[in-house]
Amino acid sequence: MRHLLSTRELTRDEAVALLDIAEDMAAVQQREVKKLPTLRGKTVVNLFFEDSTRTRISFEAAAKRLSADVINFSAKGSSVSKGESLKDTAQTLQAMGADGVVIRHHASGAPYTLATSGWIDAGVVNAGDGTHEHPTQALLDAFTMRSRLHGTASRGKGLDGVRVVIVGDILHSRVARSNVWLLATLGADVTLVAPPTLVPVDTTGWPASVVYDLDDALAGSPDVVMMLRIQAERMHGAFFPNSREYARTWGLDDARFSQLPTTTMVMHPGPMNRGLEISALAADSAQSTVREQVANGVSVRMAALYLLLSGERGEA
Amino acid sequence: MRHLLSTRELTRDEAVALLDIAEDMAAVQQREVKKLPTLRGKTVVNLFFEDSTRTRISFEAAAKRLSADVINFSAKGSSVSKGESLKDTAQTLQAMGADGVVIRHHASGAPYTLATSGWIDAGVVNAGDGTHEHPTQALLDAFTMRSRLHGTASRGKGLDGVRVVIVGDILHSRVARSNVWLLATLGADVTLVAPPTLVPVDTTGWPASVVYDLDDALAGSPDVVMMLRIQAERMHGAFFPNSREYARTWGLDDARFSQLPTTTMVMHPGPMNRGLEISALAADSAQSTVREQVANGVSVRMAALYLLLSGERGEA
Amino acid sequence: MRHLLSTRELTRDEAVALLDIAEDMAAVQQREVKKLPTLRGKTVVNLFFEDSTRTRISFEAAAKRLSADVINFSAKGSSVSKGESLKDTAQTLQAMGADGVVIRHHASGAPYTLATSGWIDAGVVNAGDGTHEHPTQALLDAFTMRSRLHGTASRGKGLDGVRVVIVGDILHSRVARSNVWLLATLGADVTLVAPPTLVPVDTTGWPASVVYDLDDALAGSPDVVMMLRIQAERMHGAFFPNSREYARTWGLDDARFSQLPTTTMVMHPGPMNRGLEISALAADSAQSTVREQVANGVSVRMAALYLLLSGERGEA
Repeated sequence: MRHLLSTRELTRDEAVALLDIAEDMAAVQQREVKKLPTLRGKTVVNLFFEDSTRTRISFEAAAKRLSADVINFSAKGSSVSKGESLKDTAQTLQAMGADGVVIRHHASGAPYTLATSGWIDAGVVNAGDGTHEHPTQALLDAFTMRSRLHGTASRGKGLDGVRVVIVGDILHSRVARSNVWLLATLGADVTLVAPPTLVPVDTTGWPASVVYDLDDALAGSPDVVMMLRIQAERMHGAFFPNSREYARTWGLDDARFSQLPTTTMVMHPGPMNRGLEISALAADSAQSTVREQVANGVSVRMAALYLLLSGERGEA
Repeated sequence: MRHLLSTRELTRDEAVALLDIAEDMAAVQQREVKKLPTLRGKTVVNLFFEDSTRTRISFEAAAKRLSADVINFSAKGSSVSKGESLKDTAQTLQAMGADGVVIRHHASGAPYTLATSGWIDAGVVNAGDGTHEHPTQALLDAFTMRSRLHGTASRGKGLDGVRVVIVGDILHSRVARSNVWLLATLGADVTLVAPPTLVPVDTTGWPASVVYDLDDALAGSPDVVMMLRIQAERMHGAFFPNSREYARTWGLDDARFSQLPTTTMVMHPGPMNRGLEISALAADSAQSTVREQVANGVSVRMAALYLLLSGERGEA
Repeated sequence: MRHLLSTRELTRDEAVALLDIAEDMAAVQQREVKKLPTLRGKTVVNLFFEDSTRTRISFEAAAKRLSADVINFSAKGSSVSKGESLKDTAQTLQAMGADGVVIRHHASGAPYTLATSGWIDAGVVNAGDGTHEHPTQALLDAFTMRSRLHGTASRGKGLDGVRVVIVGDILHSRVARSNVWLLATLGADVTLVAPPTLVPVDTTGWPASVVYDLDDALAGSPDVVMMLRIQAERMHGAFFPNSREYARTWGLDDARFSQLPTTTMVMHPGPMNRGLEISALAADSAQSTVREQVANGVSVRMAALYLLLSGERGEA
């Protein structure tokens, strides 16, 4: 694998291979010395144009556990903020010998531009671009589902027939987009639930169905309910007058949670707004996978960096 | 040792054991390769909710010299500043496999909450919480006193009978609190000197005496005079009209310094306001231990991280 | 070599020796594991009082490829910003056992003060001070010229007879100053071209000629044209009404570039203002060395850190 820019273009074989390697990386996390020498002498740059401490430290931990050198490059206060172009930044990183670039950018498509423009030889990992994609989040979500469903027998498996309901601000969510593509590729059956104002105008071609009533969606007893984080600043343009109204209509509150089968996984990419899109009861229940998702994030990112930076790198 | 949250709960044996290990760590600092492989594969997170470059880099140097991987997590600009709870942050660090968390927080008690809530298995080091405690500062102060007094014969010793005068804003000082408990545990005799408005209302139970006249306190020819940093923003609510007045009444100026025995140590946690709480003459004299305190800080923090993160960790 | 504070005081032998070591470091960058164990156990502190992500990450990559531990110390938000003196900061770094300090400071002369005041034993590298010097930039520029001119036969050579034209805001440019001294020491023939308001009042003693017409300077078919970055905020006090006017009179635009011999190198310290001091055509041409300069920056900084921090260090 040369870059990891989106899940849309991942084949099932590629996705399963990455999840399988992440299993090996998860085993490393259980050892006394949680470290592999695999990427010694490689340099990974965390190029963050948006703040995201959680994602940055997950990648940083992943790279360091593979013995890579990590350089954090926050665009704030850098020449980037003085108007340096992405091209010049890329060429600088290339010239400094970056082997991998983990990029978070407010503009959808920036990682794709970085990877395909010829500016850089480094493997590029999209760590979230605008409202486009956040592929490692979807991969860690898929890894989490597969682990819960198949345990130690996960290797080689997809998510065939798994019914996943994704709830919230689909319109602005790169997490939702990356999950839609990946989960469908892995054979899952995806339903999106959102206020009508927070659904993309055109979802033609999306391998998912869209509904507008959360209780209807949950009535089907899905295997997974994934609640998205609601961004307070996004609510103003939407239908509901306030957060209490949002929670009542679109939140996984105690009543809704208690009607779910006890086998239904409750997922959230974090950080959670407890009491808004998810109740504390649901968030802290045994059905919640929130902490596993974070832990699996390190393993999945180790797998991605391993695939992109070690040994012979394939063509795009 | 499982966590290092305060000096109040340290036994004398625990404190002396930590200081003895710090002696070994100080020896490492003298070697050509100032590094031990002890914590290879461990991850230490510096979780700083308040800026403190000095303390952060001291812990960072300590962790790196034990070969740990270090991840700096400044709460500014992170999801923490967007209202993420300490619980969610803790669970994220736990899930990512943090072995140690060094926390600086504006709220007194935050490290205790982090350590005892069950959110996290990592060893927690309090790097300063509100006006409560700053235990590694007190330990490095004690280490410095012991080294000056006993040199290479320090091992196993406490500070029995050592007379320490601590001067300044006792009310707001976590450094003073941590020193009061630790020094008393080690057998020292502690006197606090402060303007009446900058003494806690109730010091019942503190193993220290409180006086209000600096010259009286210094007349007893103490073994140690520890000057606290005065925070300009704290002076407004106090008695003195300006900093010149503070320096005249509560500062270790040239006149007071010159009347001290030449064996009296002059300590300061840094950074110093020269000309305010301490004169340049006193600060830069041979009696000043300011630089030793900084150097010993790395050794003491190495000892704390070693005790918390290596081998078998005891119960709380 | 004890410190690297300026190029003005470098002898030709010292400069050539550093460039020769940088050749070896460049070879390391071509290896599968781009890392040497040379500085294992050493601590390098990046002490940046001004933001400069590019320079900081170049030094960080250089230090890490020599296996040093790197601690980034941004003065923003630190006690430095609360008025701590450079002396106290220096003594803190000294006490913590810093072996090398890379300092960027807004005040001309700060690195010299740091290195010569006796506050610190660490090797000090000036990473840019006020309008004074930026020696590693000049060294990487010289390395780049030498490599282009002599390829693998560079070792031991200077830049005798090489004709270099430096264009732009000479008055405020530490890059120009460092280049003037170094290039002259290495035998090059340097011409400075600038608007009259952006030339220092007194250049007596500078081993360079000063002219005011760019086309005249370029008519001599120089071997190297080095364009300096124009700082928008500096233009207001100067002669030209706007940036278009600047580009027309002082920029290496397409017309000027096309009249240069194809062997003339086009250099720029980055980040470039394309369309202002340099056209995109010139910047992206085969004659442009911009990317080589960045790559060589890591090698030159590895060489500087190696000379300052490994083995026996000479006296100042």
